Amino acid sequence: MSVVRGGIAISLDGYVAGPNQTQENPLGEGGESLHEWALDTEAFQRMHGREGGTRNADSRAFEVAEEGIGAYVMGRKMFGPSGEWDPEWTGWWGDEPPFGGPVFVLTHHDREPLELGATTFTFVTDGIESALEQARSAAGDQGVAIAGGGSAIRQYLAAGLLDELFLHVAPVVLGGGVALFEGVDDARLEQAEVLAGEGATHIRYRVLR
Amino acid sequence: MSVVRGGIAISLDGYVAGPNQTQENPLGEGGESLHEWALDTEAFQRMHGREGGTRNADSRAFEVAEEGIGAYVMGRKMFGPSGEWDPEWTGWWGDEPPFGGPVFVLTHHDREPLELGATTFTFVTDGIESALEQARSAAGDQGVAIAGGGSAIRQYLAAGLLDELFLHVAPVVLGGGVALFEGVDDARLEQAEVLAGEGATHIRYRVLR
Repeated sequence: MSVVRGGIAISLDGYVAGPNQTQENPLGEGGESLHEWALDTEAFQRMHGREGGTRNADSRAFEVAEEGIGAYVMGRKMFGPSGEWDPEWTGWWGDEPPFGGPVFVLTHHDREPLELGATTFTFVTDGIESALEQARSAAGDQGVAIAGGGSAIRQYLAAGLLDELFLHVAPVVLGGGVALFEGVDDARLEQAEVLAGEGATHIRYRVLR
Repeated sequence: MSVVRGGIAISLDGYVAGPNQTQENPLGEGGESLHEWALDTEAFQRMHGREGGTRNADSRAFEVAEEGIGAYVMGRKMFGPSGEWDPEWTGWWGDEPPFGGPVFVLTHHDREPLELGATTFTFVTDGIESALEQARSAAGDQGVAIAGGGSAIRQYLAAGLLDELFLHVAPVVLGGGVALFEGVDDARLEQAEVLAGEGATHIRYRVLR
C-alpha cells in the first residue's frame, strides 16, 4: 500500500505550536519561529506563486515532503481559524492553494466541496479513518500526506495509521504549547533520511508497528 | 575565549533521561534507548578500550564532540550513582576512563582529586561557575565540554555560560523524564553543523546571547 506521511515543524522541546494559541495567533506564542527556515526557500516561494528564494536543503525538504503524494488530509485549524465555523471561509491560501490536488479537511461541519484552482477541499465529518480512506482512494497508487496541524498528525500516529513522520526540527525552544507526542509516547520510530538544512534539520522517520 | 560546549542525547519530545530515574536505573525508563546509536560505533568502542565498531557519522559525532576540548565538567550523577555519596566510588569507567585529561565533578562533598590513568577527577563543591573557571584554566587555550548529565547542561545553559549545544537527536519518544529545556525556554539557538547519522541525527548549535 502507498505511504501515509505526516509532516510538521517541531521545536527542540517537542512542540509544534507555542503556548496560548488564539484565533488571531493559531501558532501560539513564538510558534512562527518554527517556520522561519521555510520562508526564504525557493520551494516556499514557488508554492505561493512567487519566483526566487534560496535553493538549499531546506527548500529540498518541501520537495521530499511532496514526493509521491497524491492527496492531502488536514485538520480544521490548518484549513481555517478556530472559533466559530465560517461557511464562507476558503482557506489561508487565496485562489490558488499550493496543494494542486484533493485535500480532505477534518471538521464537524458539513459543507459542499470547494474547488480553488487545481485544489479541491472536501470536508469530512465522520472521522480520521474515513478521511484517510477517501484520500487513499483519491490518491490512487500515490501516497497521502497528513499536512497538519499537530493535533491531526498526533491522532493519526496514535491510531497507528502513519507510515512515516517527517519532522522539521527547528532551532527553537517554546517551553509549552501543542506537544506532538502527548499521549503517544509508545511511538516507535526509525530514521529513514536526514536533510541538513541551514535553518532547520529535516528528519524523515519510518513509524514501526 | 575558547568554546564551552554542552553535549547530550535527547528524545524527540525533549527529554535527556526517561521517567522514574532510580539509583539502579539513572537513565530512567526507556532512557537507554537515547544512547543506542552510540553503542556500535568505532569511537565508542575505542573510548572503552575495544577495537572494531562501525565507522559512520554516528561515530564521527563523538569526534566532533571532543574537537578542541581540553577539560570536562560533569554533574554528580554522571560521575556516580545518586543516593548516598560513596567516598570510595571511582566512576563508571574503570581504571582507564575515556576522558584522558582533567575532569571537574560538581558535588556537595569534599574529596581529594582522583587520578585514574590519564584522567584526573577534581571534585568541586562551590558551584558551576567555579567548576567552569577551574576547567578553563586546566584546558589552557582549548575548550571545555560540559559532558552531562542533563541537569548540569541545563544549569550552564540557564546561566548563559554555554557557547555551543551539541544534541544527539535520537529517534525516541520518552513521554516524561528530565526535560533539557525546562526553565530555559528563552534559550536562543542557531544551527552550526549537522551530522546525519544512521541511528541519530547530531546537531551542533551555537547559543546566541
